[in-house]
Amino acid sequence: MTYCLAIHVNDGLVLCSDSRTNAGTDNVSVYSKMFPFVWPGVRFFTLLSAGNLATTQAVVKKINSDIAAGMVPNLTTVTTMQEAADYLGIVSTQVQKLHASRDTATTNFEATFILAGQIIGQAPEIFMIYPQGNYIHESAEHPFLQIGEIKYGKPILDRVIKRDVALEPAARCALVSMNSTIRSNLTVGPPVELMIYRRDSFEEGKHLYFREDDPFARELSEKWSEGLFQALDKLPHFDWEYQ
Amino acid sequence: MTYCLAIHVNDGLVLCSDSRTNAGTDNVSVYSKMFPFVWPGVRFFTLLSAGNLATTQAVVKKINSDIAAGMVPNLTTVTTMQEAADYLGIVSTQVQKLHASRDTATTNFEATFILAGQIIGQAPEIFMIYPQGNYIHESAEHPFLQIGEIKYGKPILDRVIKRDVALEPAARCALVSMNSTIRSNLTVGPPVELMIYRRDSFEEGKHLYFREDDPFARELSEKWSEGLFQALDKLPHFDWEYQ
Repeated sequence: MTYCLAIHVNDGLVLCSDSRTNAGTDNVSVYSKMFPFVWPGVRFFTLLSAGNLATTQAVVKKINSDIAAGMVPNLTTVTTMQEAADYLGIVSTQVQKLHASRDTATTNFEATFILAGQIIGQAPEIFMIYPQGNYIHESAEHPFLQIGEIKYGKPILDRVIKRDVALEPAARCALVSMNSTIRSNLTVGPPVELMIYRRDSFEEGKHLYFREDDPFARELSEKWSEGLFQALDKLPHFDWEYQ
Repeated sequence: MTYCLAIHVNDGLVLCSDSRTNAGTDNVSVYSKMFPFVWPGVRFFTLLSAGNLATTQAVVKKINSDIAAGMVPNLTTVTTMQEAADYLGIVSTQVQKLHASRDTATTNFEATFILAGQIIGQAPEIFMIYPQGNYIHESAEHPFLQIGEIKYGKPILDRVIKRDVALEPAARCALVSMNSTIRSNLTVGPPVELMIYRRDSFEEGKHLYFREDDPFARELSEKWSEGLFQALDKLPHFDWEYQ
């Protein structure tokens, strides 16, 4: 399984992904699921992937080969984030159909993507591209999108993430959401990747890696547990506790 | 769907359940999923239920009719919590088989239960009874069990609940776990029921109901959100934030 999330706040974008892949519990590997595509000063994209690893790898290769070969459309020619999402949906479904055409069993080749980015002159946007190639975007009322094992890390996002949260606190919230998921579900695992993109910067942004023994990640997890205990202590007491 | 959980700490037991049932999104009802069976001074049980409502209602009726008719075993004759779990597994599978024998389609009659309780002279215990009638119990390393929509509310339990947590803080933690689930998933809904049983008391304990507009529940949710923001503020900052 996988857990990836993307947050869109007024100050920019935050993306976070785990790196665990598994084909059964006895076949576990580490693969990055975060793919930045940056043309400094002009356009910034980052792709997050979940699902069949052969599909997601083939999609990323196709995105790169389309750019290298000057195929139209590619990520340098699309004029809006929606066009980029549309392009990704076409590439993803083409790859899935190709792999399915060679299938000797009834394999699940599906993959789901989050595409976040900004094209110069436009606002940052985040799209989630379904295995069917269609897509949805986030909104002011729901300024984040998740793929993979989404439930464990959703309550903290539901309570905290709004457009006016600053970029670094939103990034800390993303790390907490990821950390809680890793603690509760074995199929999501480190290293964790974090991308912090400041709106209108049109550069890769801060791209951070946190391995299992990373001191920052460990301190974050410990401080978060401490903070939760303090938050619990401050909750209203039952009436009989005041007697 | 449903969310129920049971916690076993040194001081006693905490049980919590939602009350939403649905057969499709357009057929939503309110039913209690918490059933206490108490013989003061002697034995205390509470059953939590998830799954097919006709099955869970029939199981509760059968438990009561077995007691009334003096059938052996029943909840007054079992000598251990494990015997009680075994009895419940038999009742549950008998009901499911009966209903399946009349089925005109391929209906899912499955139900899952949590049985918590204490019999005089023994320690409190919690069992989860699967639809197949077999069961597991909690342990010192994992002193809680959940049924239904369990993922949203698991991270807070994973971080907080240990045997040495006091009874009321454990109950507040259960309410937070439930509240987070209700906020993130429409199929889990109020009223919320909470049972706080003090070890060796052999009485029903505190049995509380929180409706949607309950001032205590609302204050708890608000204070928890405040506490989360404070916990986020105290997390380690990224190195560039100190410059």
